[in-house]
Amino acid sequence: MAAEIFVKKQTIDLRKKHIGPSCKIFFSHDPVKIVRAKGQYMYDEKGQRYLDCINNVAHVGHCHPDVVKAGAQQMELLNTNSRFLHDNLVLYAQRLQATLPDKLSVCYFVNSGSEANDLALRLAWQYTGHKDIITLENAYHGHVSSLIDISPYKFQHLSDDERNQTVHVAPSPDVYRGKYRADHPDPASAYADEVKDMIHGVHEKGGKIAAFIAESLQSCGGQVIPPTGYFQQVAQHVRKAGGIFIADEVQVGFGRIGTHFWAFQLQGEDFVPDIVTMGKPIGNGHPMSCVVTTKEVAEAFMSSGMEYFNTFGGNPVSCAIGTAVLDVIAKEDLQGNALRVGGYLARLLEQQKEKHPLVGDIRGRGLFAGVELVKDRLTLTPATAEAQEVIYRLKEQYILLSADGPHRNVLKFKPPMCFTEEDADLVVGKIDQILTELEEALGLKLQNALSLENGSSKRKLPAEENGHVYLGALSHDRGSSRGLPQQAKRLRT
Amino acid sequence: MAAEIFVKKQTIDLRKKHIGPSCKIFFSHDPVKIVRAKGQYMYDEKGQRYLDCINNVAHVGHCHPDVVKAGAQQMELLNTNSRFLHDNLVLYAQRLQATLPDKLSVCYFVNSGSEANDLALRLAWQYTGHKDIITLENAYHGHVSSLIDISPYKFQHLSDDERNQTVHVAPSPDVYRGKYRADHPDPASAYADEVKDMIHGVHEKGGKIAAFIAESLQSCGGQVIPPTGYFQQVAQHVRKAGGIFIADEVQVGFGRIGTHFWAFQLQGEDFVPDIVTMGKPIGNGHPMSCVVTTKEVAEAFMSSGMEYFNTFGGNPVSCAIGTAVLDVIAKEDLQGNALRVGGYLARLLEQQKEKHPLVGDIRGRGLFAGVELVKDRLTLTPATAEAQEVIYRLKEQYILLSADGPHRNVLKFKPPMCFTEEDADLVVGKIDQILTELEEALGLKLQNALSLENGSSKRKLPAEENGHVYLGALSHDRGSSRGLPQQAKRLRT
Repeated sequence: MAAEIFVKKQTIDLRKKHIGPSCKIFFSHDPVKIVRAKGQYMYDEKGQRYLDCINNVAHVGHCHPDVVKAGAQQMELLNTNSRFLHDNLVLYAQRLQATLPDKLSVCYFVNSGSEANDLALRLAWQYTGHKDIITLENAYHGHVSSLIDISPYKFQHLSDDERNQTVHVAPSPDVYRGKYRADHPDPASAYADEVKDMIHGVHEKGGKIAAFIAESLQSCGGQVIPPTGYFQQVAQHVRKAGGIFIADEVQVGFGRIGTHFWAFQLQGEDFVPDIVTMGKPIGNGHPMSCVVTTKEVAEAFMSSGMEYFNTFGGNPVSCAIGTAVLDVIAKEDLQGNALRVGGYLARLLEQQKEKHPLVGDIRGRGLFAGVELVKDRLTLTPATAEAQEVIYRLKEQYILLSADGPHRNVLKFKPPMCFTEEDADLVVGKIDQILTELEEALGLKLQNALSLENGSSKRKLPAEENGHVYLGALSHDRGSSRGLPQQAKRLRT
Repeated sequence: MAAEIFVKKQTIDLRKKHIGPSCKIFFSHDPVKIVRAKGQYMYDEKGQRYLDCINNVAHVGHCHPDVVKAGAQQMELLNTNSRFLHDNLVLYAQRLQATLPDKLSVCYFVNSGSEANDLALRLAWQYTGHKDIITLENAYHGHVSSLIDISPYKFQHLSDDERNQTVHVAPSPDVYRGKYRADHPDPASAYADEVKDMIHGVHEKGGKIAAFIAESLQSCGGQVIPPTGYFQQVAQHVRKAGGIFIADEVQVGFGRIGTHFWAFQLQGEDFVPDIVTMGKPIGNGHPMSCVVTTKEVAEAFMSSGMEYFNTFGGNPVSCAIGTAVLDVIAKEDLQGNALRVGGYLARLLEQQKEKHPLVGDIRGRGLFAGVELVKDRLTLTPATAEAQEVIYRLKEQYILLSADGPHRNVLKFKPPMCFTEEDADLVVGKIDQILTELEEALGLKLQNALSLENGSSKRKLPAEENGHVYLGALSHDRGSSRGLPQQAKRLRT
């Protein structure tokens, strides 16, 4: 198929005609048409190169030749369902299992993170015989109806009676903006106690906890890193109530965090979830995913007598591709690269925080990083329009970054794992320029903010509270800032 | 990846260790290991060829070179999400739309039939503002939790309080075994009136109908062909109640029925569903699927303000593959082939019915056919064990067929669309031999059964009611019939 069939205008018109309008596009007033990609770079129809800082799905690099070859060769040979014996299926299951604690030994192969999380709920319901689910504020777990129910990121605008009454939302363990912050003596226990109290509340109303589900690090929710020890304590409370712990690794698994292969492992070796769900990066873009659980949960699921069959799940092509992804991660030491380049990126970003008052917080692990922009480091007023301005201007300079979180003010880094220090220099250098210009325009200056934010003085910084309106003047080159809030909304998952 | 990595015993052991036991395998006591496939043939690790009569997913033939090439070339170039403009997405949407009535113009690309049907429910709920769903007896719509709720094929063993109370099960429009049969003057109206009455019942209890959902032809439910006019009347009743009509084409779409591209079109040109869902054959095995609906439904979904994003859905590789599948169907006139070979197969099977008392009913359209085995053509006692015996013996003769339906007594033909008359001769010849032997062993003879079944005389045929036990003696070559009932259960989707 040719790289370009229609001129861009035609593509846009056909998209308007034939694609559901709920399916949003990046940079809707001037979207990007991408025709090819390689490594951490994407190319538009004119051959212009973009640095990709957002596509965690293209985990080992766009169009990695080893992955393409594995897929193409297997497609040529056989692609069928898992009701026939095939070595790719069991080999891949064995390889995945080897990355996990021993007790997580049983795999179910499915086609998307959504299918994985829905199956995780089914396993939990069946294993426990309970129905209630505890999820976290701002969590996103997928697009099928059962997952909209447990994703406050999606359902927060619904009325109470449109929400599932067996779903309970615990505070996000966000130590920057959440209920208990970095200055709390023990935020892990404080947040876990919230879950404990919630369980009591559910019991009082006659409910029974089936599961607690959390992304090991919240992504759409604003790149949130839960305090160490939080998961252990939550698991203890939940298991005491007869429930199980589901770790959603769809966004953050497969070595992205650098120090470990799975992000739940950041909590310590004493923590093992009952179910781990995988997705996005698992097949470098190929539609596949996996649920891994214990023998006990798997046997309880079988004891229902209801068979589980997934037409495409675990087919030989998906398994060949999944195995190739694991091979490339190992061969190219991409987990090590995530640790090294992620560390380098974090240091660059910390320098930005020292320099720019708009930068409220830098957080992340490996090549999963967040830069939270605020108008005021004490009140933490989200700099939403400014964050959108940053990503728009970066796009004009051929760098793809996104902003997310409940206030859409967190710059979100999750690039292909072959990202380099030079790439980090490039994007942070551009951010530096943009923030400098924005702050000049807003009249923002860093007034000893670093000492202030940790001190007891609550003196407010001279921040421009009306930055959004002011930014309008900056947006002369593409028709004003009117598009910004809308765009902000549209960039969400 | 090599064709065989482990010896079969190791593959089986690893599968037991690492794959969820709810994921069943064909012929569990002696499963088949398939290492390659081409057209309508699959090959085991010893190079033995099997004729494939069941894999409707491998729609244009296993590993079709055009499809493989389209996928491989696009994988090499770009595979990313639909937030970037890409011509493959809009081209494919345009191509799909051209196969459908004009008003079905808006596509949502997802990864599986399950994702498609779940999204169809979300569209229906949002568009109508209603919650209740009417589904058909024995229906199967997918494996995610919302679809288990509407799939009696899956939930029929659950207790009442485990069932979703907003889901209502209408009688299957099965004119062979159902409530209204071929001798009824107007089964279409009779079955549609059941739906009408059900709607009244729901209204009386304060419910409101969001949608009626049906496979255009029931597949797992026993290859059921609804009487012409049924869908029109149901749609009228459902729309009058403010609900919409969802046609599930996951199993039967893409020209399989021969006369039309979509099976709902069998009902006549005056019938257009509000939503059509697609799946299995759409990508010849590649994990992809689609929901197509009207502009009105799509706009109502958008008006909720909730974005719809599907990470893998509509990626350039899936769209390239989907387009290649459409191209091959046209280029090789596979719809025409389905009509011709399907007609030939039907005639061969009708001859079997004339010859074998075990054959109760032959039904189907194109290369979607069912042979219902009964012990008695008047009582319609299902010949479940006999059906299992047929598929086991066929497998020993290197032909893959399955049995399904609520009594697991319907031999189910849904081969790759390149199936030939010679293939039909081969499989029906083998079935003839097996049925002859079975009937001899059971002492079954055709006593003018054809006239009897349509006549007023209700005299019972001298059928062997205890066929299952008797069959045990026939199963000497693989460790008795003890495995049969279990196998029967395991072969279900």
